[in-house]
Amino acid sequence: MRAIRSPRGSSSNGGNVTNTTVNATRPLTDVAEAAAGAARAFARTSPRERGAALVAVADALDAAAGELIAIAMRETGLSAARLTGEVRRTSWQLRLFADEIVDGAYLDVRIDAADPEYVIGPRPDIRRMLEPVGPVLNFAASNFPFAFSVAGGDSAAALAAGCPLVVKAHSGHLELSRRTAEVVVEALRAAGMPDGVFQVIEGQENGVELLKDERIRAASFTGSTHVGRLLADIAASRAVPIPFYGELGSVNPVYATYADDALLDGFVASVAGSAGQLCTKPGFLFVPEGAELGSVERAAAGVAEHRLLNPGIGRAFAQRRADVLGAEGVTVLNEGEVRTDEGGQTFATPTVVTVDVDALLANREALLEESFGPLSVIVRYPDQAALPALHEQLFPGNLTSTVHARPEELADGSLQVLVDALADTSGRVLFGGWPTGVSVTPAMQHGGPYPATTTDDTSVGTAAITRFLRGVSYQGAPQELLPAPLRDDNPWNVPQRRSAAGGSTGWGSFAG
Amino acid sequence: MRAIRSPRGSSSNGGNVTNTTVNATRPLTDVAEAAAGAARAFARTSPRERGAALVAVADALDAAAGELIAIAMRETGLSAARLTGEVRRTSWQLRLFADEIVDGAYLDVRIDAADPEYVIGPRPDIRRMLEPVGPVLNFAASNFPFAFSVAGGDSAAALAAGCPLVVKAHSGHLELSRRTAEVVVEALRAAGMPDGVFQVIEGQENGVELLKDERIRAASFTGSTHVGRLLADIAASRAVPIPFYGELGSVNPVYATYADDALLDGFVASVAGSAGQLCTKPGFLFVPEGAELGSVERAAAGVAEHRLLNPGIGRAFAQRRADVLGAEGVTVLNEGEVRTDEGGQTFATPTVVTVDVDALLANREALLEESFGPLSVIVRYPDQAALPALHEQLFPGNLTSTVHARPEELADGSLQVLVDALADTSGRVLFGGWPTGVSVTPAMQHGGPYPATTTDDTSVGTAAITRFLRGVSYQGAPQELLPAPLRDDNPWNVPQRRSAAGGSTGWGSFAG
Repeated sequence: MRAIRSPRGSSSNGGNVTNTTVNATRPLTDVAEAAAGAARAFARTSPRERGAALVAVADALDAAAGELIAIAMRETGLSAARLTGEVRRTSWQLRLFADEIVDGAYLDVRIDAADPEYVIGPRPDIRRMLEPVGPVLNFAASNFPFAFSVAGGDSAAALAAGCPLVVKAHSGHLELSRRTAEVVVEALRAAGMPDGVFQVIEGQENGVELLKDERIRAASFTGSTHVGRLLADIAASRAVPIPFYGELGSVNPVYATYADDALLDGFVASVAGSAGQLCTKPGFLFVPEGAELGSVERAAAGVAEHRLLNPGIGRAFAQRRADVLGAEGVTVLNEGEVRTDEGGQTFATPTVVTVDVDALLANREALLEESFGPLSVIVRYPDQAALPALHEQLFPGNLTSTVHARPEELADGSLQVLVDALADTSGRVLFGGWPTGVSVTPAMQHGGPYPATTTDDTSVGTAAITRFLRGVSYQGAPQELLPAPLRDDNPWNVPQRRSAAGGSTGWGSFAG
Repeated sequence: MRAIRSPRGSSSNGGNVTNTTVNATRPLTDVAEAAAGAARAFARTSPRERGAALVAVADALDAAAGELIAIAMRETGLSAARLTGEVRRTSWQLRLFADEIVDGAYLDVRIDAADPEYVIGPRPDIRRMLEPVGPVLNFAASNFPFAFSVAGGDSAAALAAGCPLVVKAHSGHLELSRRTAEVVVEALRAAGMPDGVFQVIEGQENGVELLKDERIRAASFTGSTHVGRLLADIAASRAVPIPFYGELGSVNPVYATYADDALLDGFVASVAGSAGQLCTKPGFLFVPEGAELGSVERAAAGVAEHRLLNPGIGRAFAQRRADVLGAEGVTVLNEGEVRTDEGGQTFATPTVVTVDVDALLANREALLEESFGPLSVIVRYPDQAALPALHEQLFPGNLTSTVHARPEELADGSLQVLVDALADTSGRVLFGGWPTGVSVTPAMQHGGPYPATTTDDTSVGTAAITRFLRGVSYQGAPQELLPAPLRDDNPWNVPQRRSAAGGSTGWGSFAG
């Protein structure tokens, strides 16, 4: 349970690495070895033991929240209110994963009784469960210094699954990452988890190098499409390829059949929240031609200036904004401001523009790319019936798509084709409300067709645990050599789905 | 529901394609379009409707078994007994998938009630289910002309999931593939499934081209490591990458703590069955130094000559066999024979050799590669305690690993470290018995660390369906626009896992 510092880190030296707890320098390969060395012991811990450890981490984060939030505010420019909510969400998702695993249902235990009369030939006793895939490398995000970072959702899912974890800290909040790592390491240690189950490294080169290490068995990532695809390609081109669960880009289109002040106020608030630096920020709002959009400027004018996360994101946003403002057919609803201070940090107020469908189609290059920051495009459409085909053409892969319609339209079935198109191309379809503010629940899906995610798996909510599990069957095994969940005495008392001999043919039960 | 013929096919013309049922030629892109066009209608069929269609296909295959087996015998050289069993297995797995989906549990429905008091902020009503990923391309295998071919396991899983399917027929049994496709198409049509849900294409180039088509959303494959990796790399390098579920190579090591005549007889039978052309053929048997191996020759001498599947496989086997026989340190236990007839077909009897551990380590290049055909290597080991580390070094990814030990050894815990090593590196761990003859059951795992499979998913057994499903959440949706499984009136009567407002916090229940 150690943290590796980047060459850029204040107490680093060259390509070496620093142990958070004892400050010893050590090569990157030792990190992989420590993770691999911890894998078997960690896999053997019971769900209840790992659940208790996750709860201990949650408690420790909550206890350290004041100190951590102060660091995060300085490093990210996010507000105290936002970061306070984010810490609560982060500790909550650790608790939720603890609850998800504790009964063992996630192990998907299946036990086929031996059956000498099985229709396709005598069947041995076969027992299958999901086991952890082994060491996981998690690339932390810039925009959620808690919830998608050192102790964030991917980390919680991997640890809940029983996988040793190495987090590649995001360079945008290194001090916070180090301090969070210390809190996590101490809590895991006190909870009796094996040494090596939680490590942090720093530096892009270190992340790439570790991604290539054969001892790493899966990776997760939240960030840009460019970097995510680069890493996904590395993962796929290894001698032994590994799954790469990346959450990349999403513009989260919203389709409204009407526009009134309340809707536009909600839209501006969703675009402006956290300075628009959210994976689920609505990048496009479709409204009927002729809709009155005057209240956008009024709502946007009420939004205070907000710092962007770091100078690089600030520069990229300024460029994207300039591209959008300069695109043909674009009308400015609220120009907003972007300024850079002496320290290189960028501050912005919301930019909202409008185009018609033809202009959008004619300027896809400038307009369709995700704008990471407080900018959104309102598209005026002449024909509601054309929206499904338009959506499929423009937005083949998104985290979310949203419909705003009046109650009678929701009830009369006229939106079914649009909803089908949204479901085919999105991980989450919303009716009313706004896609930002992703809840963490069993039914949440945060992942959709590429480039929303590299696979269709979710990185938020308890279903995220399946990414870090693999099936293993044991055939004809003596009770003594079976993992606990597969034993007849079922010491962990997990659900065991049994198919009995004889009557378990299925075909008969289907026919009936 | 059409079949495309390769340029090599008797009634083809150039790169065009032939419709099995009406013999119209059509370009490959029409195949993708037909599959994509069928996706939504097929996704909307209820599990019961799709189950009934799978059962109809199974019935049709059983009814046509006599005719199909005759074609298969001619095209593959496999025996009537083997093929009769294989048809039974193939229709059985269709029935098993029908049974797997009919209750809707596979949809993993989760419903979170709206909760204004949710600890991390008001939670909307969120409902999640698994939906089909869309059109699937399945590359059929050479060695199971029924069970891993046109209507085989991957096909059954994709259809059960509700995904339109295109099968790339294996060139080794084209006539059988065409006839099977006709049987399947007719059964699906009669069962009311949408046009376009089942198509067959021929030709490697067509397969590669379709794999690159953006309308194909997932692919499956059973075959060699070389070809599988090539296709996996294509799938990963698309503008929109798709999951590629490939079952590639496996040598299925067996570790015996003793060797007697019964064990060696079973070993030879497993090596020789279907002329060793099985993914799970034991390629290595480890026995204690000094074990009496004389009965191997006796058992092998009783095995009749068997044709290999096709001339290409025959040539490759002859080469592998020559490499193994020529490797330093190899002692022949049964040399076997390989001959080629006038038609270019190869016939073989089993070749079994033995080496000690040092010779195996010194000649890895010649010995470790999979031999597809009736050949296996018995390794004599001096130290049972060294087996776990040896296994991890030599066999990082296999479909199966097997232990043969005496009852007292199985009971005293001395094999735990070995079993842990096997479970870390294999999809299925056997105790006694032989890995060939994979049963099709809910608990079967046929897939393991690379290169056994490209992902850790299984391609045999009902758990294989998860490969072709993706999660979609609906937030705040009106009942009228929800998919049937997510509706409160639950018209398909599927299991719905509900997390209620208030008490559903998990953390509390874990702590208690």
